[in-house]
Amino acid sequence: MSKEITSRVVDYSQWYNDLIIKGGLADYSAVRGCMVIKPYGYAIWENMRDQLDKMFKETGHENAYFPLFVPKSLFEAEEKNAEGFAKECAIVTHYRLKADPENKGKLIVDPEAKLEEELVVRPTSEAIIWNTYKGWIQSYRDLPLLINQWANVVRWEMRTRLFLRTAEFLWQEGHTAHATKQEAVAETVQMLEVYATFAETFMAMPVIKGVKSANERFAGAEDTYCIEALMQDGKALQAGTSHFLGQNFAKAFDVKFTDKENKVDYVWATSWGVSTRLIGALVMAHSDDQGLILPPKLAPIQVVIVPIFKGEEQKQLIDEKVIIFQQQLKAAGVKVKYDDNDNNRPGWKFAEYEMKGVPVRIAIGVRDIANNVVEVARRDTKEKMSMSIDGLAENVISLLNDIQEAIYIKAKFFRDAHITNADNWEDFIQLLDVKTGFIAAHWDGTTATEDKIKELTKATIRCIPLNNAAEEGACILTGNLSSQRVLFARAY
Amino acid sequence: MSKEITSRVVDYSQWYNDLIIKGGLADYSAVRGCMVIKPYGYAIWENMRDQLDKMFKETGHENAYFPLFVPKSLFEAEEKNAEGFAKECAIVTHYRLKADPENKGKLIVDPEAKLEEELVVRPTSEAIIWNTYKGWIQSYRDLPLLINQWANVVRWEMRTRLFLRTAEFLWQEGHTAHATKQEAVAETVQMLEVYATFAETFMAMPVIKGVKSANERFAGAEDTYCIEALMQDGKALQAGTSHFLGQNFAKAFDVKFTDKENKVDYVWATSWGVSTRLIGALVMAHSDDQGLILPPKLAPIQVVIVPIFKGEEQKQLIDEKVIIFQQQLKAAGVKVKYDDNDNNRPGWKFAEYEMKGVPVRIAIGVRDIANNVVEVARRDTKEKMSMSIDGLAENVISLLNDIQEAIYIKAKFFRDAHITNADNWEDFIQLLDVKTGFIAAHWDGTTATEDKIKELTKATIRCIPLNNAAEEGACILTGNLSSQRVLFARAY
Repeated sequence: MSKEITSRVVDYSQWYNDLIIKGGLADYSAVRGCMVIKPYGYAIWENMRDQLDKMFKETGHENAYFPLFVPKSLFEAEEKNAEGFAKECAIVTHYRLKADPENKGKLIVDPEAKLEEELVVRPTSEAIIWNTYKGWIQSYRDLPLLINQWANVVRWEMRTRLFLRTAEFLWQEGHTAHATKQEAVAETVQMLEVYATFAETFMAMPVIKGVKSANERFAGAEDTYCIEALMQDGKALQAGTSHFLGQNFAKAFDVKFTDKENKVDYVWATSWGVSTRLIGALVMAHSDDQGLILPPKLAPIQVVIVPIFKGEEQKQLIDEKVIIFQQQLKAAGVKVKYDDNDNNRPGWKFAEYEMKGVPVRIAIGVRDIANNVVEVARRDTKEKMSMSIDGLAENVISLLNDIQEAIYIKAKFFRDAHITNADNWEDFIQLLDVKTGFIAAHWDGTTATEDKIKELTKATIRCIPLNNAAEEGACILTGNLSSQRVLFARAY
Repeated sequence: MSKEITSRVVDYSQWYNDLIIKGGLADYSAVRGCMVIKPYGYAIWENMRDQLDKMFKETGHENAYFPLFVPKSLFEAEEKNAEGFAKECAIVTHYRLKADPENKGKLIVDPEAKLEEELVVRPTSEAIIWNTYKGWIQSYRDLPLLINQWANVVRWEMRTRLFLRTAEFLWQEGHTAHATKQEAVAETVQMLEVYATFAETFMAMPVIKGVKSANERFAGAEDTYCIEALMQDGKALQAGTSHFLGQNFAKAFDVKFTDKENKVDYVWATSWGVSTRLIGALVMAHSDDQGLILPPKLAPIQVVIVPIFKGEEQKQLIDEKVIIFQQQLKAAGVKVKYDDNDNNRPGWKFAEYEMKGVPVRIAIGVRDIANNVVEVARRDTKEKMSMSIDGLAENVISLLNDIQEAIYIKAKFFRDAHITNADNWEDFIQLLDVKTGFIAAHWDGTTATEDKIKELTKATIRCIPLNNAAEEGACILTGNLSSQRVLFARAY
């Protein structure tokens, strides 16, 4: 298989697919719209998961696990939520296969094993979870209830793309219950902050924190907060959402509690989630035409060591040296791989690890040993430098930190340069088509206008940024009065 | 809710359910046969998972993720496997709900959204994985392929029990591909050893390693290796299985490779798994009539500190002291909780943490501070002792190790005392009914005899132990010649 990657300017979309497939992150599967997450891609997900899980636990959340299936009668209880997801649900109707009497060795669905009530494969778990919370919450002493779940969910999407939009995906979904509205809103905002910190600090991906317009809200939410990132093609990507659910689910599932004054009220709710979609975002935020560029904090391999040698004698000399500083790197917590596989030449390995986005490559030959140095190459800038073997671990760690920061700064510079004001329709269209990115424009606040703009341009309101500046203006489409600019973009 | 637990002698089965529900490990759900794993139960599973995952990675395996759904045509490709699972499969037949025209606010399955090919919710993933491996394996250089998956699976069981047998459960499934039979068998045995080490070292649960009879083999396997544990009611529990799959799946999915001599052959396979069922085993292996007894190595809370005080002044004195040694315990890696919740009395807390199986409880009052001591109680023996606050962390860690060892020894003593030889049918029946446990008896090696014994007694062959002693004898049922004893038991 050729490892050549389509360049971004030729075909951005193909470039992305090439990176995913040739970088070994994922593969297509035999199931429509579902993918296989390969070990290298899954290792990135594990790193994301472990870090997020730590942050969730530090903010007082515990993990639990709820059923994959939602009985239809529960699914439809919160009407807006049900309506929002009904069109993309996988439905289990039977619980048995039997031998096909007409085709030896083949199976058919056993018509006698029809379920009395169909089961929806969870597209999200509010319904099953709030039905459970009903049994767990009686008094203010049971609140807040701060639970997260790591799980797979299924949404029957018609057009799918590896990681970005698949019928099945992995995610986490937090579901919390609170005694007051204020506390639930504070939780919603807190988790948005956790997501933003994760995106910027670990993914090295700058994000804009904001609130969705009514149109783009999660089905069943009172308010949807989000973090929005910008990809290299100038399209936006929603990277995480945190929903204030009000008392909607508490009312749908009759979850009430007795407060300190012995008054009974419905419970307030939030939910929040990020998914394997983040891997797609990570790939598109940083990578180049040679392959992936992974931030050191999430890279499955942070440093690869490649020996350059002729013959067994040279190899032994190198091995002896490598074993020492490899151990030092490991002891310092660096994820390091020594690739002394004989089947591949150094040049092949260099290209391979460039493709895979390993942040730092160390090459070492016998002449280097004589000089007590190694050749160090950083993936992001492709800069090469000579480093003394003495104190190597310390210098490599410092380099990894530099890379983490550099790719964040690069992405932020690009993102900041792609937030542009538009004050009239012509500029708006022109910016969307040519410059791309986020367009800050006035909007009259109506769903009708938002729909019309989407219909005309495929751009949507990505968010109303938090702490947005008040500014009087005229809606770019209708000319009606507007009190603030909102961010439009074409989006994944 | 009463926290009283049914005692084992009164109703063992109810005792088990009480522990699970009142100990806060799991809850029933609205979905037939599915359960909710509550935070405390899930925390045990996280500890199990993290440890097993470490052991899998140390033996060279990587994690990946494959689709939840298996198209029916793939599912039926390996006939024995398909036949084995066909009767308990949840089947997705439709991908959309729509508004019910006859019931406002209700939904019905949209008959126009019927899938062309039904999807089986994976009961195990050999089919989807081997169909994928076909694209990944061409040459000996692609082997061995050592992959594990953490996932949920669904088996439509008719009679379910919390953790022990549920329609949906969480598990890991390893799926490896090898160039030679020898290597695949070695992998099968290696993973059995990993499971046995995990069970004995971390769960403190002694297990017998063995091979299943043909009757009890995994559907599609050539050989099934297993670890079998003994519960306190004298019933056996299969705690983990490792299958040598021969070339069955490679043939069903046409997975061939070119070896070093350029010869083409089918690939050899293994699969191996353990599930959330282990939590049920853990509960039944050690607990008593007061509640759970958890091994320190898997306990979500290893040490709980309970302050005994009257008034704010005493509380402050205690807090100051606790903050110091709590920090020392944490720094030493101990999972410690300080429960200074004002709502509950110390006696209530003592009972609660006894119920939850926290291995060590530390109580501290003002008089203790004056004496520079705390009261330490161990959960397994209920022994109380006074410990100096100086060097507390060190002594507590040593105590945790003692507890881990003590509960293993206790379980092993019980298990060893419940392996009994039976040399005739009357003894066999008598032992099964009265003494219970494993019965080592001669068997003529036929499936017919095994079936008959099961029909008559509900006992099954749990395993033929590895390195079993050769011994001539007569089958307890038929009197036919036998070359070794095998282990029978009634089982979960």
